Amino acid sequence: MNKLENFVTGRWVTGDGEGQALFNAVTGETLAHASSKGLDFKAMTDYARTVGNPALRKMTFHERGRMLRALALHLQKELPRFYEISYQTGATRADSWIDIEGGIGNLFSYASLRRKFPNQPYTMDGESHNLSKASTFMGTHLLVPKEGVAIHINAFNFPVWGMLEKVAVNWLAGMPAIVKPATVTCFLTEAVVRSIVDSGILPPGALQLICGSAGDLLDHVQSQDVITFTGSASTGLKLKSHPVILRESVPFNMEADSLNCIILGEDVEPGSPDWDVFIKEVRKEMTVKAGQKCTAIRRVFVPENKMEAVWKAVANALEQTTIGNPKNEKVRMGALAGQTQKSEVLEQVSKLLAGSQLVYGSLDSVQLIDADPAKGAFISPLLLVNDKPFQQSASHEVEAFGPVSTIMPYKSADEAIVLSRLGKGSLVSSIVTSDPSLARDYVLGAGPWHGRILVLNQACAKESTGHGSPLPLLVHGGPGRAGGGEEMGGIRGVKHYMQRLAIQGSPEMITAITQVYQPGAGGREDRIHPFRKYFEELQVGDQLLTGKRTITETDIVNFANLSWDHFYAHTDHTSLEGTLFEKPVAHGYLILSAAAGLFVDSSAKGPVLLNYGIDELRFVKPVYAGSTIQVRFTCKEKIDQEKKLDTDLPKGIVKWLVEVMDETGEQVAIATILTMVQKQKDEPSK
Amino acid sequence: MNKLENFVTGRWVTGDGEGQALFNAVTGETLAHASSKGLDFKAMTDYARTVGNPALRKMTFHERGRMLRALALHLQKELPRFYEISYQTGATRADSWIDIEGGIGNLFSYASLRRKFPNQPYTMDGESHNLSKASTFMGTHLLVPKEGVAIHINAFNFPVWGMLEKVAVNWLAGMPAIVKPATVTCFLTEAVVRSIVDSGILPPGALQLICGSAGDLLDHVQSQDVITFTGSASTGLKLKSHPVILRESVPFNMEADSLNCIILGEDVEPGSPDWDVFIKEVRKEMTVKAGQKCTAIRRVFVPENKMEAVWKAVANALEQTTIGNPKNEKVRMGALAGQTQKSEVLEQVSKLLAGSQLVYGSLDSVQLIDADPAKGAFISPLLLVNDKPFQQSASHEVEAFGPVSTIMPYKSADEAIVLSRLGKGSLVSSIVTSDPSLARDYVLGAGPWHGRILVLNQACAKESTGHGSPLPLLVHGGPGRAGGGEEMGGIRGVKHYMQRLAIQGSPEMITAITQVYQPGAGGREDRIHPFRKYFEELQVGDQLLTGKRTITETDIVNFANLSWDHFYAHTDHTSLEGTLFEKPVAHGYLILSAAAGLFVDSSAKGPVLLNYGIDELRFVKPVYAGSTIQVRFTCKEKIDQEKKLDTDLPKGIVKWLVEVMDETGEQVAIATILTMVQKQKDEPSK
Repeated sequence: MNKLENFVTGRWVTGDGEGQALFNAVTGETLAHASSKGLDFKAMTDYARTVGNPALRKMTFHERGRMLRALALHLQKELPRFYEISYQTGATRADSWIDIEGGIGNLFSYASLRRKFPNQPYTMDGESHNLSKASTFMGTHLLVPKEGVAIHINAFNFPVWGMLEKVAVNWLAGMPAIVKPATVTCFLTEAVVRSIVDSGILPPGALQLICGSAGDLLDHVQSQDVITFTGSASTGLKLKSHPVILRESVPFNMEADSLNCIILGEDVEPGSPDWDVFIKEVRKEMTVKAGQKCTAIRRVFVPENKMEAVWKAVANALEQTTIGNPKNEKVRMGALAGQTQKSEVLEQVSKLLAGSQLVYGSLDSVQLIDADPAKGAFISPLLLVNDKPFQQSASHEVEAFGPVSTIMPYKSADEAIVLSRLGKGSLVSSIVTSDPSLARDYVLGAGPWHGRILVLNQACAKESTGHGSPLPLLVHGGPGRAGGGEEMGGIRGVKHYMQRLAIQGSPEMITAITQVYQPGAGGREDRIHPFRKYFEELQVGDQLLTGKRTITETDIVNFANLSWDHFYAHTDHTSLEGTLFEKPVAHGYLILSAAAGLFVDSSAKGPVLLNYGIDELRFVKPVYAGSTIQVRFTCKEKIDQEKKLDTDLPKGIVKWLVEVMDETGEQVAIATILTMVQKQKDEPSK
Repeated sequence: MNKLENFVTGRWVTGDGEGQALFNAVTGETLAHASSKGLDFKAMTDYARTVGNPALRKMTFHERGRMLRALALHLQKELPRFYEISYQTGATRADSWIDIEGGIGNLFSYASLRRKFPNQPYTMDGESHNLSKASTFMGTHLLVPKEGVAIHINAFNFPVWGMLEKVAVNWLAGMPAIVKPATVTCFLTEAVVRSIVDSGILPPGALQLICGSAGDLLDHVQSQDVITFTGSASTGLKLKSHPVILRESVPFNMEADSLNCIILGEDVEPGSPDWDVFIKEVRKEMTVKAGQKCTAIRRVFVPENKMEAVWKAVANALEQTTIGNPKNEKVRMGALAGQTQKSEVLEQVSKLLAGSQLVYGSLDSVQLIDADPAKGAFISPLLLVNDKPFQQSASHEVEAFGPVSTIMPYKSADEAIVLSRLGKGSLVSSIVTSDPSLARDYVLGAGPWHGRILVLNQACAKESTGHGSPLPLLVHGGPGRAGGGEEMGGIRGVKHYMQRLAIQGSPEMITAITQVYQPGAGGREDRIHPFRKYFEELQVGDQLLTGKRTITETDIVNFANLSWDHFYAHTDHTSLEGTLFEKPVAHGYLILSAAAGLFVDSSAKGPVLLNYGIDELRFVKPVYAGSTIQVRFTCKEKIDQEKKLDTDLPKGIVKWLVEVMDETGEQVAIATILTMVQKQKDEPSK
């Protein structure tokens, strides 16, 4: 008997007993057994917290990101093997691409996000606040990795993506993970975890795997842990009601199936390009993964006078969807994950049919290519029509987790918004329209009830990633029935695994803690110009108080001539009445340029390579001819950069605070500028 | 019998029965009775959702902010009355200042935050993401007000601040509130709500009040609602386990009492300025509000060789704290909120004394000024010492919600971090030190277990807002025992009352929805220069493709001479080997200045008043002499501004996207610049 192993406290361990049988969704044959019986779940959480967590949390974001990238590159080498296993879940190659390469894509995506973070184990969060009159007391926020373990309880439909979309995020944040995939398809997750473990890329304790029941795992959670759950609302409710989770205030992020909808805009006529976009999207969302997606379209709202045209067009499109053995290249839709799933879908459909009629598909039979309907978990796409969406509410409450959607009529755009809300919160909604004001009204009206809204039309359809695809840079999750959770969303996701911490103190202390210069902290001046220091030599707080320069009328005239900017406020003494200026004012960019003239060191070819931009610049007081300016120039932040190629110059990014004062000592401009600074020591590319 | 009224569905309503008696904490006399019996709690939630919510959500952030400001100004007029009532809760004038004026300060603070938001009912969240190769498909995030009601269940210690710190935030977000203060001090909350209602400043349904039990209120919560709770961990646990809250995935934000600690740094010697800062802070945190603060210092960790010096110094400081009738000006510490609170404190202290010894204060007697110890809920400050903090764990688990703290020894800085964690999560911790590396190690080591850390020393003590004070711009809340919640934190708090929504579509559609120009959306060019349009006339997407300009060697030389920036990369043909440049490169600020020369309209005194800064600027490709640049200049965003004075020019802020291309069509620089643009129509100040 092929028994899957669990990866527990750094070792592959077989559970007790026979375990649960896992089947090939296409042929019905037994593939393996899964058991987690007898595992020491408490030891798993302890190991993650005491071995995995300290290793990850001391790494910097950049190190963690490069680890993700290395892992993604490693997994890419094993694609053929993963695809082969994935067919056994009933998935077509296209379905598996979403699961496997989509999951690996998530690793790459979060790997790249390291560049949004400092090369430190922690990061600042948001702006700083002066909290005092004399600027001796201030506050800001840090994000520090939590000290626990991320426990991911995942759904059966995406055994790879479901794991990778979550671990990519907790690893970048500096937390280890315990993954418990749904048992029915965990043989694919197990194969990927085995590959990850074998790669040796992760530190010990960063990942553990449970194939089978979660046992008493949740009895051992603590306040520094994070739990995520993807799956049915009923299981999710049971889990999040767990007394230890509640008592310990453990964050519980839930992402549940929901009754996602699509709206056909009133502006879209049959036969138009947007019409075709709409029909294609409905068909795709019904049949990809045989409809086993928490984001699939379950409810289709169309103007009442287009009901028949819509269902006929969708039925026609479905008719062309070939079903059968996913290994066969002609097949466009594979099997459900197993017979249990099939029975559940049919049971839910029977509830839907109490208030709807079936207009396409069959409950009993399905035409298959290269597969036996008696053995595989195949089902026909089922298209329903509910003419009375306000009376027959099952369409908004009952989810059949398969290729099943219900078409319903609406009378007005406002009514479409009301109908969308009847799902009581969903992951995603789409509207197909080319009318901007209709799109805007729908998004703002339906927005509070959805986690994501896609506005689809011919302008973007070709490149659209589609209604059903959560993306690493956008949040995934929705209110109410969808669980009230939020995953991914770029750096937002990382914050779920970090503690946000307000810190207060003197500017000197906050500078020392954050390693970002805080105004008022006071600088360190020495006889070496900051532009003459290599990246390693520079310290946050290194400061230069420049010489002075009197801005003359000649400067302003010359600058107007050189820039061609002859705006009246700079050039015309007679037109200033009613303006904010008393006299012709120096161009803001002249002040900025003259400031650079004061702080740049032209004496030699220094380690500073180039000035590549400005983060923020404000002109706070007008400068008139005769004013004398001076600059306080301070090293604000150092951001290490890895080399892409061995031949690259070794360098880092340095942000400088530029404070320009006039002869009264008042600030006239303040900016944060960015330079690249060479390193003294070369290093290999990473 | 004086029976407090509830403010329910827009009317003041008396509850059934006699209700709960409320007492003057100082004299023990009965003040009033509170009953919410017989109220229709379901009707309250319906009213908030159907009357209050639509009114608030359609207002813009700016309108909501001005509403908060008007309310704050209104409440300031009634300060004397509020102070008078507050004395009856046992609070001194200084205690009441925190509660009453601190609460009003929160209204002002969130009123000002409106400027961080657009003058729209909703806002964008974070940056936009191009999700396609040909830039026809993109995504970003919106925050839209939730459609439910914010239900605030508050603690007895801050009857005013506790309400205002929360409603300020939900109102700015566009949500109505139902407030249920702790019954024992709700007579003060009732007085403030009555004043708010009488002001007529809020739209109907924006605020309702329950004086007494919350009845079956929580049975009626829905997924679009938000619940906050401040109080004991045990009550919080009971509430958040409510089946309807769990089933509907209602966000539940909890802020519970916690065993906050302070560390005396190893660098601080007796008699030094930092020593005095430390002793003063401990004394203050023990006695302000008679220690009835969820942020009060309960645990004091000091180097083991300074134990005796510390407890003697604190005891000496406490000795000087006068206790008694808070109306008496000589009194520094008032009464507990009531006899029930006093009994609870003594009960908890008896648990603490199992492992600690009392080194200051008395359990039985207290010397009072102008008050009768038999009638008022007075208690002596109680200072405890626990010499074995790892063995005697009650100090980390039992909270006496009064003027009670325990001093404990630590052996090393690392051990101090471990001890701080034994509280299992707290709202705030402080460390007194002038050693930056000690401060940094403590913050990073203890950080995951705290919501806020204050680094206190002589440099900031004079202006410090103190260990115990949550501030509107910083988050308030902590992990684990502290409830795992997060309030305020500036704009972070507002997000708790809004749904974050990912939106996807073509750049045109996302521009139409967000009213912020998205690159690739295409612009609208007409024959009127954008600088010739008034604020009202300008539309997002208005665009100008400028004429061209060839950047010559003369320009570069002239710019070097005018700016004084003679950096070798711009001026020295012979030093470029090994740099990133092939030839002397034009100064970045020359390109920016020349771009301005191209897009500025110098033909007349236009409605554009001034250029006041840059949000972001990047130089993405070097420009050499001989290159020809051109600018695409697009109206990106319009931000309405209210007038402060009637004599101000009526104006708004306009952000422009500046894209500079060279003769190959490639981008050389991109920036977002900010201008002020005059309005055509004048308007009164708001």
